[in-house]
Amino acid sequence: MASPLVEEVVARTQRDLAIIREERPRVHVLTNFVAMNVSANVMLAVGAVPSMTIDDTVIEDFVGSTRALVVNLGQLDPWRKISVPIAIAAARKLQRPWILDPVKVDRSGRRLAFAHMLIDAGPSVIRCNRDEVGMLEGESDTVLAVTGEIDHVTDGERRVDIANGSPLMDRVTAMGCAASALIGVFLAIDEDPFMATAAALLAFGIAGDVAAEKAQGPGTFQPLLIDALHALDDASIAERARVS
Amino acid sequence: MASPLVEEVVARTQRDLAIIREERPRVHVLTNFVAMNVSANVMLAVGAVPSMTIDDTVIEDFVGSTRALVVNLGQLDPWRKISVPIAIAAARKLQRPWILDPVKVDRSGRRLAFAHMLIDAGPSVIRCNRDEVGMLEGESDTVLAVTGEIDHVTDGERRVDIANGSPLMDRVTAMGCAASALIGVFLAIDEDPFMATAAALLAFGIAGDVAAEKAQGPGTFQPLLIDALHALDDASIAERARVS
Amino acid sequence: MASPLVEEVVARTQRDLAIIREERPRVHVLTNFVAMNVSANVMLAVGAVPSMTIDDTVIEDFVGSTRALVVNLGQLDPWRKISVPIAIAAARKLQRPWILDPVKVDRSGRRLAFAHMLIDAGPSVIRCNRDEVGMLEGESDTVLAVTGEIDHVTDGERRVDIANGSPLMDRVTAMGCAASALIGVFLAIDEDPFMATAAALLAFGIAGDVAAEKAQGPGTFQPLLIDALHALDDASIAERARVS
Repeated sequence: MASPLVEEVVARTQRDLAIIREERPRVHVLTNFVAMNVSANVMLAVGAVPSMTIDDTVIEDFVGSTRALVVNLGQLDPWRKISVPIAIAAARKLQRPWILDPVKVDRSGRRLAFAHMLIDAGPSVIRCNRDEVGMLEGESDTVLAVTGEIDHVTDGERRVDIANGSPLMDRVTAMGCAASALIGVFLAIDEDPFMATAAALLAFGIAGDVAAEKAQGPGTFQPLLIDALHALDDASIAERARVS
Repeated sequence: MASPLVEEVVARTQRDLAIIREERPRVHVLTNFVAMNVSANVMLAVGAVPSMTIDDTVIEDFVGSTRALVVNLGQLDPWRKISVPIAIAAARKLQRPWILDPVKVDRSGRRLAFAHMLIDAGPSVIRCNRDEVGMLEGESDTVLAVTGEIDHVTDGERRVDIANGSPLMDRVTAMGCAASALIGVFLAIDEDPFMATAAALLAFGIAGDVAAEKAQGPGTFQPLLIDALHALDDASIAERARVS
Repeated sequence: MASPLVEEVVARTQRDLAIIREERPRVHVLTNFVAMNVSANVMLAVGAVPSMTIDDTVIEDFVGSTRALVVNLGQLDPWRKISVPIAIAAARKLQRPWILDPVKVDRSGRRLAFAHMLIDAGPSVIRCNRDEVGMLEGESDTVLAVTGEIDHVTDGERRVDIANGSPLMDRVTAMGCAASALIGVFLAIDEDPFMATAAALLAFGIAGDVAAEKAQGPGTFQPLLIDALHALDDASIAERARVS
């Protein structure tokens, strides 16, 4: 029998998706060039309205016109290095939730140092993979999501593991980045960052399951994942959820 | 019964597509990172040859080697802020048509100010959505296309409304940007910017109708839209056009 | 009857693909924004792990953590102009193979001059199209691949022609760039740059043949190409190879 926490995650996923489709929240995303198009399409598929400008001279306007911020460190070019701290400062001032995706901090000491500086600014959520999390110190106030074959989400007190999702997701670029963008969408409308993160990853994982059943390979998997997110309904979420 | 103007738009769409497929015009596009790949594929699907360099040191070479210019203000980074005025100056000097897509000028006063400066340089066409057009003042010499559920195209004297297209287009990123890129292709081979704009939007809308009939959602819609543009023939254009 | 060289290319394609799938080599790619996503997906489809950062302050870390380097000159922005020479110097110092894709050097004298400077640094392979190769002088130490309807690969002594591939590849953006990225993957695990290049282009061409049989147009062709690369097996390679 499912625990109350598991039942809450499933119900929250259903509720949050309905709110997103109704309210169409605006979310600003600072992400790498590989991930931009697919992240925007993942966000649009559930009903959110993404913006992705990098320009430091307008970034405060854009953060101010949106309800959550996503910061991804992949392919960090000089302009995002300038714009990211400005965007985070704006999000903090406006009390907007924000998520950090510290892409490949295991590959470069300089990128890791930049990530640590951003973590000190207090993201609502950090999402990363197993290689990356080894480089980061636990932050007690931040929800931590480590995704992989099983996605682990914890806020220090609560913890859920999500087993949905397909091995094909490891063969399509920017799936982790797109998951972070989707968490940003759920953060925009759900005040509990732990629940928002778990709900977003459950929705993403279930859509991955649905897409994998139809896909012939990683190429057709990606558009089918977008379709599945767009079509995701309460019954599929309840039936397919593999949360513990 | 269709008015002479409507009949002319339909015939022009058929004629222009045939010319594009025959001549394979080169068109230079300065656009945002989210839109680049899909815009290039939309252009290639009808037979055009896109180039997209941002580099200010070679931008005049590229504008000089192409027949029309597309300027899109999404995700304006510092290098496009430098290259855009150089590219526009080159297009003016060479008397090449150019189109402006003032993405999200309703979100930032600074971006709006930049857009106004570019509008003063006299684009052949401005394409935007309803939120954006409210920020722009009417320019009598410029063709204005406001796209949405119905696309409105006017040059101050003539006006057509195009009802083709699918609601799924609102759930796929960069569809408006890709429409602007396609208008750039038609501008390259059609001397009448009003007709070129109406023809491009009619072709794009009809391809959207065809794709929506086969798509399972916004993910599969996008590749099917490219296929439909590639396969678009005179009979489909004549039968499916919903122009008034 | 197939020549020994042709038989060797076919066998090498089978062998190299098996090694890539087993070892999952990391490859760093400096490429244009249009090509990034599709190049990454092509690389992941065969099992490689791409990284694509542009940042000059971490580029040596990334080149150091990968086994081959891909340098593509499309949409050369100022940061890649800075990072490319640093990345190449790092690859040379670490004796990593690297490939140059001199995109559209026929369109700009400045870009051509930059390409010549990079060629002087001694790439393992240059891949380009017919328009571009006319601008480049023969480099005796470098494998040269000129792709098109027929792909020609030579190292000055050996030469093969590969007739696989579909005309649809000319209607999808960044197919040449993705081919260069795939050559980078084969270079990472095959010490003979001529064989690595021929094997990568044969795998890519055969996947194109498979995809074209199922595709309805250039839009559906692209995801099907990724699927075909992912599923490519020894029997298909042996049966479909059109090498001379």
